[in-house]
Amino acid sequence: MKIAALVGSNRKDSFNKKLALYMQKRYRATVEIEILPIEKLPMYNQDDELTPPEIVTEIKKKVADSDGVLFVTPEYNHSIPAFLKNAIDWFSRVDKVMAGKPVMIVGGSPGVLGTARAQMHLRQILNSPGISALTLPGNEVFIGAVHEKLDESGSLVHEPTVQFIDTVMDNYINWIKKQSQ
Amino acid sequence: MKIAALVGSNRKDSFNKKLALYMQKRYRATVEIEILPIEKLPMYNQDDELTPPEIVTEIKKKVADSDGVLFVTPEYNHSIPAFLKNAIDWFSRVDKVMAGKPVMIVGGSPGVLGTARAQMHLRQILNSPGISALTLPGNEVFIGAVHEKLDESGSLVHEPTVQFIDTVMDNYINWIKKQSQ
Amino acid sequence: MKIAALVGSNRKDSFNKKLALYMQKRYRATVEIEILPIEKLPMYNQDDELTPPEIVTEIKKKVADSDGVLFVTPEYNHSIPAFLKNAIDWFSRVDKVMAGKPVMIVGGSPGVLGTARAQMHLRQILNSPGISALTLPGNEVFIGAVHEKLDESGSLVHEPTVQFIDTVMDNYINWIKKQSQ
Amino acid sequence: MKIAALVGSNRKDSFNKKLALYMQKRYRATVEIEILPIEKLPMYNQDDELTPPEIVTEIKKKVADSDGVLFVTPEYNHSIPAFLKNAIDWFSRVDKVMAGKPVMIVGGSPGVLGTARAQMHLRQILNSPGISALTLPGNEVFIGAVHEKLDESGSLVHEPTVQFIDTVMDNYINWIKKQSQ
Repeated sequence: MKIAALVGSNRKDSFNKKLALYMQKRYRATVEIEILPIEKLPMYNQDDELTPPEIVTEIKKKVADSDGVLFVTPEYNHSIPAFLKNAIDWFSRVDKVMAGKPVMIVGGSPGVLGTARAQMHLRQILNSPGISALTLPGNEVFIGAVHEKLDESGSLVHEPTVQFIDTVMDNYINWIKKQSQ
Repeated sequence: MKIAALVGSNRKDSFNKKLALYMQKRYRATVEIEILPIEKLPMYNQDDELTPPEIVTEIKKKVADSDGVLFVTPEYNHSIPAFLKNAIDWFSRVDKVMAGKPVMIVGGSPGVLGTARAQMHLRQILNSPGISALTLPGNEVFIGAVHEKLDESGSLVHEPTVQFIDTVMDNYINWIKKQSQ
Repeated sequence: MKIAALVGSNRKDSFNKKLALYMQKRYRATVEIEILPIEKLPMYNQDDELTPPEIVTEIKKKVADSDGVLFVTPEYNHSIPAFLKNAIDWFSRVDKVMAGKPVMIVGGSPGVLGTARAQMHLRQILNSPGISALTLPGNEVFIGAVHEKLDESGSLVHEPTVQFIDTVMDNYINWIKKQSQ
Repeated sequence: MKIAALVGSNRKDSFNKKLALYMQKRYRATVEIEILPIEKLPMYNQDDELTPPEIVTEIKKKVADSDGVLFVTPEYNHSIPAFLKNAIDWFSRVDKVMAGKPVMIVGGSPGVLGTARAQMHLRQILNSPGISALTLPGNEVFIGAVHEKLDESGSLVHEPTVQFIDTVMDNYINWIKKQSQ
């Protein structure tokens, strides 16, 4: 089972990148999670969508070939970062590579809300006709105080959070299987 | 009175760019609307925020020096374009140049909704602590079928829409005056 | 296939009630749509949830026994009416009768937006842990100018709208089948 | 200065009712907070709006005569309770008693989010044309773990929360003064 992962932050020491890498490792026996290099995407411009740079085509192909898409995102200004929205804007046009893709959403923040508002926006965005993803209902993963739950090696060391993500990952794999029947 | 305008689309023949240019011309006796070149902004990255490229500093200074900020935006996937969110993400950090700025919002789309959903997101985004704008309450300008309401020269030729924007611009100017007392 | 329908307006000549009745009749060969008498529900109060009035138990049983839930709702103040939220608040507690129920959403309004904003709220509400519905992704039915599209007998006489609802109903029935496998 | 307060829960031992009573007492030297008996309102029905029960008229008059409106609300299913939306639905029609009213929002929940999502919905609702309130921008009061922050007498005993509400109340009073100039 191949999962394309989109991380919502491009900063070097991003907590959400660490979460994605941790999940990649933890679930490698079950799913192959590939983190897509969306930092290479130029800003979306409708004038370019029919003749996009090659990197756009390459990344969209990865999404199209995946069995599902995992979003791991911080919250910027009550919404998702432009960095993540940009990938979504590219994906929503011409060949709509997200259509019918099962989606799981995770987010971590240093504050208490754990990206709850960004995820509300993200679910609305993923429900638009240009995306038409099959977002796993419920199963909201809000990781507050994320800086205290990751150790120096990038492992998640907060046991209740680990167990919750395990459960959501199980639900997500079942969701992928059911939707692909 | 100086208004900094942010257009949410970077495509050449953008309807929303035309709307911004139309407003710039129509209200020039009262307000000076300057459309900021946000297409020059790189993608926001937290690692760069303390030592940003010069264009970031220049554009932020324009916002800081303005009496108010006008958003004219399309809707992409039920939200604002990454292109516009990127400017907001830059503005929300270090010196928070949007804090206390009176804001007016306009949006046009070829469909019937006239960017209603993007504007719901935008108002929530502008209310975040990093932005803290003073968005004009109500006064929602949703221009559906925008391609039929702009003529070839970029003039708005749908009289009820023109009158409505006139009213909202009046309300906005009064809002700026009241908030700056 | 049994569908429990919730109409978001309690007024006598509600357009949305007419839409629900129209759908009940149009699709009767395929699905049995029963409009639940939610006007009989008292205002939800947590103090009463363990010993609710009998009508609460009766209506919740109808939902629990259904194969899916259809919402047909107006928009009040950018959201769903209290009248509809009240039913949802009852359903979300004690025995969570909406959990796993496939949901379809329709809305009509005299204005152009066709309840687009109410439906954004409704989808977020239905995704909460107390509800955990399986809302049909995409398939947004926004019926603007609804008063011009219903004739005196309550028939939908706007052919593109009829065809669109037919398509969404097909998608919904397939969604119910897939989720119940 | 007279503030009309709307509490979003009708249960006897509501945390949010306690918060409202606490604020009423704490700020009595500066503002007179009156908690309106919205549990007496019948469910809104458009058929009754021109000839409403007397209690509707009485409560609307209290709102109309106030200098501002304070909302203190729990979160039910990612949104505001039907109980609170019902009052808003009544206020939005015929004489629009909320128009131009300065609004402050507070919310407490036993969980960590402190009603953040309900408040996102509430701000959107209050921005609708039928309401047109002047909601204090920013100043988001999310009281998580509220059951641990109120003592048996209903006093808020979590000092950082008390100080934050003090600050927001100051900002709110200044907001009322500025908007009424």
